[in-house]
Amino acid sequence: MTSIVTMTPLEGPSSRTQVTRKDVARYAGVSTAVVSYVVNDGPKKVAPATEAKVREAIRLLGYRPNAAARALKLGSSKTIGLIIPDNSNPFFSLLAHAVEDAAAALGYALFMTNSDGNLAKEKRNLRSLAARQVDGVILSSVLLYPDLAELESADIPAVLLNHATDAAGFNSVGVDLAGGARIAVEHLISHGHTNIALAMGTNTGNDFDGRELGWRQALTDAGLAEGPIIRSYFTRDGGYEAGKKFLRTVNRPTAIFASSDMQAIGILRALSEGGVSVPEDVALIGFDGSAEAEYSIPSLTTVEQPTRAMAEVAVRALVGASSDTEPEQRIFPTRLLIRRSCGCSVSNGGDSTAVHSLSPLS
Amino acid sequence: MTSIVTMTPLEGPSSRTQVTRKDVARYAGVSTAVVSYVVNDGPKKVAPATEAKVREAIRLLGYRPNAAARALKLGSSKTIGLIIPDNSNPFFSLLAHAVEDAAAALGYALFMTNSDGNLAKEKRNLRSLAARQVDGVILSSVLLYPDLAELESADIPAVLLNHATDAAGFNSVGVDLAGGARIAVEHLISHGHTNIALAMGTNTGNDFDGRELGWRQALTDAGLAEGPIIRSYFTRDGGYEAGKKFLRTVNRPTAIFASSDMQAIGILRALSEGGVSVPEDVALIGFDGSAEAEYSIPSLTTVEQPTRAMAEVAVRALVGASSDTEPEQRIFPTRLLIRRSCGCSVSNGGDSTAVHSLSPLS
Repeated sequence: MTSIVTMTPLEGPSSRTQVTRKDVARYAGVSTAVVSYVVNDGPKKVAPATEAKVREAIRLLGYRPNAAARALKLGSSKTIGLIIPDNSNPFFSLLAHAVEDAAAALGYALFMTNSDGNLAKEKRNLRSLAARQVDGVILSSVLLYPDLAELESADIPAVLLNHATDAAGFNSVGVDLAGGARIAVEHLISHGHTNIALAMGTNTGNDFDGRELGWRQALTDAGLAEGPIIRSYFTRDGGYEAGKKFLRTVNRPTAIFASSDMQAIGILRALSEGGVSVPEDVALIGFDGSAEAEYSIPSLTTVEQPTRAMAEVAVRALVGASSDTEPEQRIFPTRLLIRRSCGCSVSNGGDSTAVHSLSPLS
Repeated sequence: MTSIVTMTPLEGPSSRTQVTRKDVARYAGVSTAVVSYVVNDGPKKVAPATEAKVREAIRLLGYRPNAAARALKLGSSKTIGLIIPDNSNPFFSLLAHAVEDAAAALGYALFMTNSDGNLAKEKRNLRSLAARQVDGVILSSVLLYPDLAELESADIPAVLLNHATDAAGFNSVGVDLAGGARIAVEHLISHGHTNIALAMGTNTGNDFDGRELGWRQALTDAGLAEGPIIRSYFTRDGGYEAGKKFLRTVNRPTAIFASSDMQAIGILRALSEGGVSVPEDVALIGFDGSAEAEYSIPSLTTVEQPTRAMAEVAVRALVGASSDTEPEQRIFPTRLLIRRSCGCSVSNGGDSTAVHSLSPLS
């Protein structure tokens, strides 16, 4: 079956690119279409024995399937780029994983990059992905108001993810930050707290962060004075610093709403080191719904963002069949996952997470 | 300066690919080389005003720089692929971030994919990256003994990362798992423990995992009997199950060495719910050195893997200048980060992490 063919001798890596699909097909005794199916994992099925023959030919001849050539021909490399601020933040790694799953479900590979909370790196990543001709980019910007001109000049389909403000001309997907903060603070009020602090981030335009607005609104609606606002980075270390500042506060509040789970984890550590018990001395609620929040001690009551649903909508808006409709802003409601840090007593073991309520759409 | 040029009318996205670099250059009144420098962010600098002119021309004409065409021409897209088992495991997200930084330092973009602990998905990702003509792949396999034939048939430069066994023909980078386990168990023995359990994973070929060998060796060397081995997934949930099993153990050990930080975090929760204090009732040491381990309560003593150094060596082995040497197996030593869960008393606040010792190279 396998016939010997005359080949250009292979003399090094550089000559390998000269081996074509046709050479592989001849060597394996199959059609070039079959080689294509094996290389692209479809669209048609290939019998295992035939696939083995083709793979052996690919290996022997040093053939490297050329996506670049295919991309030129097809005008598409079936790839989505994702830019997130920090993959080592569990919230973003969860979100990235959800985006990857949603992309895979539509036949797209995901190329993920970090911006490290750095605007210059975010722009560089955007240009790099556009230059590599990905089909589109999902941008979770480090900025509350991303540089839309930059996004426009990259001239690539884009969707803003984890984005709660209007972005003219672009699809955007986010959560109702204000609504989420409100149900968290209302829950703390229902526990009898009247002096409630806010642990807020420093790395966005804070004045307009919905979490701050929601915290303030809930206090105002209940006729309560505003507790102190403690600003720190959206990290464990930032939360730890915030917790230490909180311990030094005059007229110390009895409850804290933290605007990220990472901050809440750091606050827990600072309070524990300061001999302050959660929830007995101070109640605490986080924001994000990351896996780590479930495993802190005490387990963390938190406002959950629906990462999976957000990722699916973002991917479909970018490359789904119905993507040529008007740009749209999708805001998802959040829900409060009740565990122990707020002062509720939940049963041990099993599913110790109770869902409090859905916040209304803003 | 900007002269009006006659252009093929743009009538939709499909015609955009017809706009060339030459069109952009004419419209902006610059040479095509300058367009190239702007698009590729180098190698030569372009004056800000000129860059603005080029970017405006790119935007107006709807030009999309064609990486596919460049890749064909250059034979390289300056891109590395990374395959890891699970990006939402903090150890792997840390490792991925370190790889991305190391790649960026050498001018390479990183395209990251997850295998979800699934061998079929790992293979699919490998083929997809090879077909997209990345310059090389760094594979952190779900298997203790990766499918090297698969890696060979993908015909793409590859380095195995987080890999501690010999892989004929491939560069590999890993840690001294046995040595790391040994210093952890020896440390528990130095605290007076004589009955030490092992929490081990189930998702690799466990019989040959160095952590199990190191645990056994340390006990044997000290003349101690082996404690129970509790097998569970390398996740928080897996650790939680392991912790509950541990609580039901007859002749319950007074110390646990957990083979991942994630497992240790889950064990902490199970023990806390069972009213068992760490380290007072049971001492605990983890493995990995993830950020989460620093923030658990009590903070987790753990065997740290040098992720940054491992990532740098892996990237350099793949695309560095001296990459055409013989395939090499690099095994890094680990170190014990002493915190509270082992029973040591460390000072509050500041740098509460003490380094115990370096394990010898295996």
